[in-house]
Amino acid sequence: MTHITVWNEFLHEKDEKIAAVYPHGIHSVIAGFLQKETDFTVGTATLEEAGHGLTDDVLEKTDVLIWWGHIAHGRVSDDVVEKIHKRVLNGMGLIVLHSGHKSKIFMKLMGTTCDLRWREDDENMRLWTIEPSHPIAQGIPDNIEIEADEMYGERFDIPAPDALVFTGWFKGGEVFRSGCCFTRGAGKIFYFQPGHETYPIYKYELIQKIIVNAVRWARSERRAPSGNNPEGQSAPMEKVDWPK
Amino acid sequence: MTHITVWNEFLHEKDEKIAAVYPHGIHSVIAGFLQKETDFTVGTATLEEAGHGLTDDVLEKTDVLIWWGHIAHGRVSDDVVEKIHKRVLNGMGLIVLHSGHKSKIFMKLMGTTCDLRWREDDENMRLWTIEPSHPIAQGIPDNIEIEADEMYGERFDIPAPDALVFTGWFKGGEVFRSGCCFTRGAGKIFYFQPGHETYPIYKYELIQKIIVNAVRWARSERRAPSGNNPEGQSAPMEKVDWPK
Amino acid sequence: MTHITVWNEFLHEKDEKIAAVYPHGIHSVIAGFLQKETDFTVGTATLEEAGHGLTDDVLEKTDVLIWWGHIAHGRVSDDVVEKIHKRVLNGMGLIVLHSGHKSKIFMKLMGTTCDLRWREDDENMRLWTIEPSHPIAQGIPDNIEIEADEMYGERFDIPAPDALVFTGWFKGGEVFRSGCCFTRGAGKIFYFQPGHETYPIYKYELIQKIIVNAVRWARSERRAPSGNNPEGQSAPMEKVDWPK
Amino acid sequence: MTHITVWNEFLHEKDEKIAAVYPHGIHSVIAGFLQKETDFTVGTATLEEAGHGLTDDVLEKTDVLIWWGHIAHGRVSDDVVEKIHKRVLNGMGLIVLHSGHKSKIFMKLMGTTCDLRWREDDENMRLWTIEPSHPIAQGIPDNIEIEADEMYGERFDIPAPDALVFTGWFKGGEVFRSGCCFTRGAGKIFYFQPGHETYPIYKYELIQKIIVNAVRWARSERRAPSGNNPEGQSAPMEKVDWPK
Repeated sequence: MTHITVWNEFLHEKDEKIAAVYPHGIHSVIAGFLQKETDFTVGTATLEEAGHGLTDDVLEKTDVLIWWGHIAHGRVSDDVVEKIHKRVLNGMGLIVLHSGHKSKIFMKLMGTTCDLRWREDDENMRLWTIEPSHPIAQGIPDNIEIEADEMYGERFDIPAPDALVFTGWFKGGEVFRSGCCFTRGAGKIFYFQPGHETYPIYKYELIQKIIVNAVRWARSERRAPSGNNPEGQSAPMEKVDWPK
Repeated sequence: MTHITVWNEFLHEKDEKIAAVYPHGIHSVIAGFLQKETDFTVGTATLEEAGHGLTDDVLEKTDVLIWWGHIAHGRVSDDVVEKIHKRVLNGMGLIVLHSGHKSKIFMKLMGTTCDLRWREDDENMRLWTIEPSHPIAQGIPDNIEIEADEMYGERFDIPAPDALVFTGWFKGGEVFRSGCCFTRGAGKIFYFQPGHETYPIYKYELIQKIIVNAVRWARSERRAPSGNNPEGQSAPMEKVDWPK
Repeated sequence: MTHITVWNEFLHEKDEKIAAVYPHGIHSVIAGFLQKETDFTVGTATLEEAGHGLTDDVLEKTDVLIWWGHIAHGRVSDDVVEKIHKRVLNGMGLIVLHSGHKSKIFMKLMGTTCDLRWREDDENMRLWTIEPSHPIAQGIPDNIEIEADEMYGERFDIPAPDALVFTGWFKGGEVFRSGCCFTRGAGKIFYFQPGHETYPIYKYELIQKIIVNAVRWARSERRAPSGNNPEGQSAPMEKVDWPK
Repeated sequence: MTHITVWNEFLHEKDEKIAAVYPHGIHSVIAGFLQKETDFTVGTATLEEAGHGLTDDVLEKTDVLIWWGHIAHGRVSDDVVEKIHKRVLNGMGLIVLHSGHKSKIFMKLMGTTCDLRWREDDENMRLWTIEPSHPIAQGIPDNIEIEADEMYGERFDIPAPDALVFTGWFKGGEVFRSGCCFTRGAGKIFYFQPGHETYPIYKYELIQKIIVNAVRWARSERRAPSGNNPEGQSAPMEKVDWPK
């Protein structure tokens, strides 16, 4: 079994127009399709809950955390970010969606600004599969058409990803590394661009399949970030005394 | 011309035993061999100078910063770290030596703990060239023998490097990714393992050649981390209106 | 279910000393531990069978091919190599063991000489885990000690792997990229160094676990190497006519 | 000094329409702008010369080979391809332009089909800079607009490049990894997509700058692909006898 926590800022959905697309919040839609997988258990957490809903207990039992945030990145407490960071380095998977590129946790893990270009203009986009053999691309066609999304364009200020699974094309003239895999410590991280709050993109079957695949890919064994002592400090190691 | 600033913690050298190896500080030895290159100008800076010797002016004119620190990483001010971080993302090269793996600036750029195994036991090590065509390996033989160094062993908790130029072998039974290249923003970063304060490793000709090569590799054009507006915020972009 | 074909040159085992280690051939030992996995079915094939045992039917149903060869790489027919190559690019996984580094199929997929250093001297080796979160490293400790193996040393003339999972340490002074992942077309390839014919290395539980993990990692969907026409030629594509 | 050989198939230019764009051949235009660099010497070679103009002497003195071919890849002799391959692995740089993606030498070095999608339709394209700090991107803006080019689209069946420097956008709905770096043996390889024979793309100043940058990046020291003996066989190495 894989336990997933879907975190959502859950502020946009107070707006009538956005509530029309996601009446119970983006997290409910995401949790909904994840729950259909028989090897997944799913919880949710949101910004305005105590501790943003991410208590030590919740983080400890979470195998993969999904993150959606946009207008209130600054309101996420540094303490919680610190705890998530440590938990990722110890093996929790992390899937960062869309505007989560500017979340504190993603920037901290990347070490860069994670800036990009953007434009809201109801633009067509196409998601191209660059690595067809990657676990996250299993069952995904050569390309997926999305009728309208916010444009996200290069240069996306991230470290070169370990694997570039998808690249996005936008009608207005931009490209974007839309599906990127990273490993940090013992944790696996997937950034996935589609999904503005004003579009029902998380209701698309193929987008859901990508996120399900990403959860399976991101889940890994729990282990300390290195073979060091419990304080996280580097520890001296005995020299080998081989039998011969 | 390339302007280099060599930063050293400069605390170890107060110890008699270490002063015997580096009487004027590790930075003086490093600055010394760099100054022989006719296209380099070199300055130094140390922890106990005002602002750690890294004023805005110094950082602004520095093309490549070399970092040596060990026992006082915590005494480097967060403000200075923030400024270095920004300057790296805007194109300043950074060469992190040996125990600088636990410096604030390196951990911030990597997003991981940068922990490793270690042992002080006057051990032989061998540095193996893994990517012979890399600019940093130009003129470097298949392997370099170092009579005694501190052992640094895997797992080294870093993101997978963009290029693995050297791997170290230690007599006691360990291996280490001893020469690693990273790009963050518009800045290029080289981590290089050899060089404990009690060994005269920076006086070895081949080690000096590697550091000189690394400076040339790390130097790049200054540019903003992405094509965004001066505040560093993502900026909307005009849609293309092609002539035809 | 995953169908695995274990291919072995099966010439060394005619020698009495080697037959003492692998009386029914290296392939029998490998097939033996793979068959214990309930989601695997396993077949074997050897050099001196007709078509080296790799008929079109066998290749078509094989999800992952394991390759062990050493002294008769040149006797593998170019036609069979061509068919394996095509099948890998269309999604068959390939695990190349030890001296298979000089097999025609591995060199063809890598595009390089795949040369390395070697020495037969009953040397201790240690296998270090470099990427603990990689699927192939699940359940594998920080390092594995092997009492005696042939030394394989850098520089190993391969393209930089997509992931470096294990690095080997040899008592005589060498290091080696012992566990390397590559993707070519839609096929995933794992090269794994331990395993000389004179040592019972494939009988070690942890080595077996690595190979089982590698099979699961290398298995992927079958798909054409790109979205092109059946002849493998690039095909023209219709321009997008978006609805709006 | 860097000696460059510009190789061109030189068949298209017999066609009147194409001769109007490149009257003395594509190679002449490329050689022309390269010759303006004071540290470059330049020669040319074409398909219909004896040995395709690539004698042992020419290859031996060439530091970087530039390759343009399209309709006659099959007419390049396997012997010459073999010699180029060996020379690249020993340190010669290789720049493969546009339709050279299906040349024998590029496919041999990549190990894959190098297939892609394409469409001739006078389409606008934009070249986006993905790695602004890469030597090949020095002096290149965030994006370059090209009024008309042949469309090349993903999936491009290549191994994941060591660095992805440029990504192309095409008006019709496709994206492409347009500027890709690879290392094979001691040789550095750059694939660059723009440049169909019917468009004057090699006359654009920024395209020329990219190719000049690529030559400087691809040039490296000559060295054997590994530390092995002249027969290309792996050679035993003396075990270390450390002084202590």
